[in-house]
Amino acid sequence: MIVVLKNGVSKARQDQLIEWFKGMNLGVHVSVGESSTVLGLIGDTAKVDLELVESLDIVDSAKRVSERFKCCNRKFHPEDTIVEVGGVKIGGGHFAMIAGPCSVESEEQIITVAKAVKASGASILRGGAFKPRTSPYDFQGLGGDGIKLLLAAKAETGLPIVTEIMSAADLPLFEDVDILQVGARNMQNFELLKALGRQEKPVLLKRGFAATYEELLMSAEYVMSEGNENVVLCERGIRTFEQYTRNCLDLAAVPALKTLTHLPIIIDPSHATGRRELIEPLSYGAAAVGADGLIIEVHNDPEHALCDGPQSIKPETFDVIARRSTAIRAAMTV
Amino acid sequence: MIVVLKNGVSKARQDQLIEWFKGMNLGVHVSVGESSTVLGLIGDTAKVDLELVESLDIVDSAKRVSERFKCCNRKFHPEDTIVEVGGVKIGGGHFAMIAGPCSVESEEQIITVAKAVKASGASILRGGAFKPRTSPYDFQGLGGDGIKLLLAAKAETGLPIVTEIMSAADLPLFEDVDILQVGARNMQNFELLKALGRQEKPVLLKRGFAATYEELLMSAEYVMSEGNENVVLCERGIRTFEQYTRNCLDLAAVPALKTLTHLPIIIDPSHATGRRELIEPLSYGAAAVGADGLIIEVHNDPEHALCDGPQSIKPETFDVIARRSTAIRAAMTV
Amino acid sequence: MIVVLKNGVSKARQDQLIEWFKGMNLGVHVSVGESSTVLGLIGDTAKVDLELVESLDIVDSAKRVSERFKCCNRKFHPEDTIVEVGGVKIGGGHFAMIAGPCSVESEEQIITVAKAVKASGASILRGGAFKPRTSPYDFQGLGGDGIKLLLAAKAETGLPIVTEIMSAADLPLFEDVDILQVGARNMQNFELLKALGRQEKPVLLKRGFAATYEELLMSAEYVMSEGNENVVLCERGIRTFEQYTRNCLDLAAVPALKTLTHLPIIIDPSHATGRRELIEPLSYGAAAVGADGLIIEVHNDPEHALCDGPQSIKPETFDVIARRSTAIRAAMTV
Amino acid sequence: MIVVLKNGVSKARQDQLIEWFKGMNLGVHVSVGESSTVLGLIGDTAKVDLELVESLDIVDSAKRVSERFKCCNRKFHPEDTIVEVGGVKIGGGHFAMIAGPCSVESEEQIITVAKAVKASGASILRGGAFKPRTSPYDFQGLGGDGIKLLLAAKAETGLPIVTEIMSAADLPLFEDVDILQVGARNMQNFELLKALGRQEKPVLLKRGFAATYEELLMSAEYVMSEGNENVVLCERGIRTFEQYTRNCLDLAAVPALKTLTHLPIIIDPSHATGRRELIEPLSYGAAAVGADGLIIEVHNDPEHALCDGPQSIKPETFDVIARRSTAIRAAMTV
Repeated sequence: MIVVLKNGVSKARQDQLIEWFKGMNLGVHVSVGESSTVLGLIGDTAKVDLELVESLDIVDSAKRVSERFKCCNRKFHPEDTIVEVGGVKIGGGHFAMIAGPCSVESEEQIITVAKAVKASGASILRGGAFKPRTSPYDFQGLGGDGIKLLLAAKAETGLPIVTEIMSAADLPLFEDVDILQVGARNMQNFELLKALGRQEKPVLLKRGFAATYEELLMSAEYVMSEGNENVVLCERGIRTFEQYTRNCLDLAAVPALKTLTHLPIIIDPSHATGRRELIEPLSYGAAAVGADGLIIEVHNDPEHALCDGPQSIKPETFDVIARRSTAIRAAMTV
Repeated sequence: MIVVLKNGVSKARQDQLIEWFKGMNLGVHVSVGESSTVLGLIGDTAKVDLELVESLDIVDSAKRVSERFKCCNRKFHPEDTIVEVGGVKIGGGHFAMIAGPCSVESEEQIITVAKAVKASGASILRGGAFKPRTSPYDFQGLGGDGIKLLLAAKAETGLPIVTEIMSAADLPLFEDVDILQVGARNMQNFELLKALGRQEKPVLLKRGFAATYEELLMSAEYVMSEGNENVVLCERGIRTFEQYTRNCLDLAAVPALKTLTHLPIIIDPSHATGRRELIEPLSYGAAAVGADGLIIEVHNDPEHALCDGPQSIKPETFDVIARRSTAIRAAMTV
Repeated sequence: MIVVLKNGVSKARQDQLIEWFKGMNLGVHVSVGESSTVLGLIGDTAKVDLELVESLDIVDSAKRVSERFKCCNRKFHPEDTIVEVGGVKIGGGHFAMIAGPCSVESEEQIITVAKAVKASGASILRGGAFKPRTSPYDFQGLGGDGIKLLLAAKAETGLPIVTEIMSAADLPLFEDVDILQVGARNMQNFELLKALGRQEKPVLLKRGFAATYEELLMSAEYVMSEGNENVVLCERGIRTFEQYTRNCLDLAAVPALKTLTHLPIIIDPSHATGRRELIEPLSYGAAAVGADGLIIEVHNDPEHALCDGPQSIKPETFDVIARRSTAIRAAMTV
Repeated sequence: MIVVLKNGVSKARQDQLIEWFKGMNLGVHVSVGESSTVLGLIGDTAKVDLELVESLDIVDSAKRVSERFKCCNRKFHPEDTIVEVGGVKIGGGHFAMIAGPCSVESEEQIITVAKAVKASGASILRGGAFKPRTSPYDFQGLGGDGIKLLLAAKAETGLPIVTEIMSAADLPLFEDVDILQVGARNMQNFELLKALGRQEKPVLLKRGFAATYEELLMSAEYVMSEGNENVVLCERGIRTFEQYTRNCLDLAAVPALKTLTHLPIIIDPSHATGRRELIEPLSYGAAAVGADGLIIEVHNDPEHALCDGPQSIKPETFDVIARRSTAIRAAMTV
């Protein structure tokens, strides 16, 4: 960490600060410049609170040179992590196609969709049982009953399942779920993250819609530092001034995060924009920038169901996406 | 709600949609224009999922005419709500001065600060016991022990106390806390909000740093619709492209929210910008735009404590803020 | 346009508003609902100022049903526009590879790079002569002399050239330039746009870093409504809270804009993120989402030039990008 | 400037970089740490291009220690600048009340409003003659004729006038205008800024709706470095995800900019939010945070004019704002 002191700081106060850093077992390298003095901190600065340092009245600014994330840092773990989900691999060259309905509604519905997406090449089934909704008056999902229906579809098709968990108190209901999803709104629900770090199932961690890359990685660190290293990251759009799409899908997050971390990163093109017609092209974009998988909402029986859930596509479209994504990934090797 | 259909939608599909709306007990007024057909929905449209309607392939766009929030809506409750916190009133002309340290550290520290801010006119004591931190390696607060220290300071000074709760499982520890704070990162932790709605203590709900006014109000609605109507809103800065300040304090939120809701709204100038020198002027701005109170970090013994916590001011500065805020509020009546 | 009136508006004021709309030769369809009255405006509402209507004290809200852009609107011009630039086609299935150095520095430099990128498949040469810089103390480009050097490279290689124009007063210097670039900072320099609309050269219009899709299209409309229909749009990143990358490349803009307009859309992956290692993957993402071309900074002789300009890649990398982008575009047809 | 090198950079490349810095007449202080080498640049680093340095492949990151703005930097000019506009002072304790209609429409209109706002305490008259509009189909202002009408109002009332200039080519029309406004969309129209720096009239420079503080100051620097030191800054709202208000008024900009620069800063509460009911409270907020003035849209004869221009208030409201702003400024001294 580099700490730039303000002009005209007294020697006494400067020494007091240096002693404080030394008390944290850090080496301090002092460099006196023309207009300011710079301290270089040497050692494990992950525990130094950058905001606190910046807020000191004798400090002009501070800057981290090394990252704070350790468990997920590629520097300390250069090879890609491969996360296994019910026998399906994600990362390290393994591309996951995750599909299913927005909400689990009935046994017939979930089994129909599960069969359809399996036939089109999906390797994992998704479906919402606990649904985080902006309004308390919106449908909140079938809860535990929804999970039972997902398990029925798993029994029928053999597909592993992923579904969202909103509270550590619900963990017993997720015993047979293959990978636990943390939604964007809970990305910094640290109590939940710590609880998921103390159990063994893999975690699918979605980026909050206003979270930086570093914050996403620090949230992964909450899970991993408790012992669970099986984390899959997911970019699903960030909030900007543009209102034509619901969010802005940040595809640069994939190659950028891959330089920072060894964890797999997948893309959710369905929730990102809120516009069905953009799911297909953005899926291709995701494959092209190097994502490790896609998680897509697919609905059943579109002719008779008026309202299939927003952002869902038909199984036929999923079929095309699966085929072309494979071709794009092959194009990367020419 | 107004629903604009796409050009060239067949009569059959249009009728199917209208029947679906009628099945929700809504009246439907059809208006055929030159280039598009518009449906006006009449009745309780709060339960209609706008995103779902917008995602239908025959719908061009949709727009709510009436708000979805009911319990907190000023239309149905024109007079200001006054929330009582341990005998102290907030809202309806009652201006609350809430102050205290960033983190509770020791009995001596919290009692010293409590006495100092009380002497300067603070009416409620704040202090962090459970601390949500971006990094798992940062200090997470004293937890339950911190609450005990806050209670000691309350016993000593008579000031009611506010502190943050991060999980419903911790509720028993907060039995003697006067108002429960929900932090910005948990503004959409719906499980926590529902749990707080089922108990009786007032709730201080901070706006998420990327939450819209409507989302903040819908989160208040989660608490209120469960039965607890004592919610105080708090604006503490939103995330923008500007990096000189940590966040951008949105002071327009105060008069804007006051037109939408009857709940009290206070301002946190300490966390908003991350710069100590901006706390004082922004406190005056808050008083001038009509806020119902301030929540400010104040630290003890700044001469000897090197690192007082970011964004904290000295008791003397708090003193000045208290005095001038009163004068500004008086200026509003000339 | 749909105009929702506030509750309890008097009949007299309502009639006054209706007369005002009728005075603009608009039909007005009045629909009286339970809680509000809605006016549907029929006719050419592009000239109605939405903000002005929304600001009227009797209006609750207003919403456009039809878009304001006409010349560039796909509804009125369903087939893709193909823009010809010195014999090279952009759009309608023609993918343009535009490459060259950040700044034109010398005849040797620009001719060397021009030959290198031509050999790798570039069809148009780019190079900065007039440089918009945040600071007046930064290098502002060679100006008219830089254009002369670009023309020398054009003479030598036969590649058409694109370079930025910052003021209509400079137009005479651009007489032999093939396509005139308007930079992101000048996207709403309406005087410049109008001047470019009154001449015949094609225009490469970059999206402002905080401009909505509609604003970008309205700026294209400034050019087109003056008579020049040869506009190529360019997405180059928008400004968000994330600071790891300089900007966030909004690849969804490509398929989203293609539904709205018939104009070609290309991607600038070099300026978008400010990180050289992201140029290659984002170029692939651009090809996969359906962009009509890429504009990439390529520098010469990287071994000896210490500072080649930010975000520039080597000719060899450009070679790979060209080859794989073609393969990705082929993958779209499987 | 501090430059952090990547791990494992060869001595040869490191020396090459150091030589390059020395070639710019900079001193270089090398500090070898455990995990990285840090270069401290000493001397005038304003001319070093930070982005270019950061883009070098051997550089991990770079950070400015000293600001790039000089002419407007408070460090080199500690006392407040006072700008004189037709005899009216702005800054250094002088609070300017600028008011007038959105657009100049007729001689009767502008003279009526000018008299009304003068009676309420306005010291400068504003009015739009050249209007930057998102759409080419919207009213673009009366242009030169509008300026003539403003001059008539100036002759009648004695109020100095401010109006927007969009192109340096129009300068001759502004000969009798007292202060030239640069709109938010032209904040980085560097050709215009340079032209305004080469003439003598004061400049009112509005912050772009996605411009950082530093970018605003660098734009002021474009004017000042050409010789014209009479610049007044104006905050008018920034673009965020929140859509209830058109923009988010960043009142923290006032005290933040005042620490960085000696230039006066005023607030435009009319354009910031696009909501008439927020103008009054935000004016008070502006006075309380320490702004040097307000620029407010005021319209005439609201009973008969249906459409007065968005965001305009009545003269009576302006009257109240003027009175209470004075009282708030007095409250700052208790």
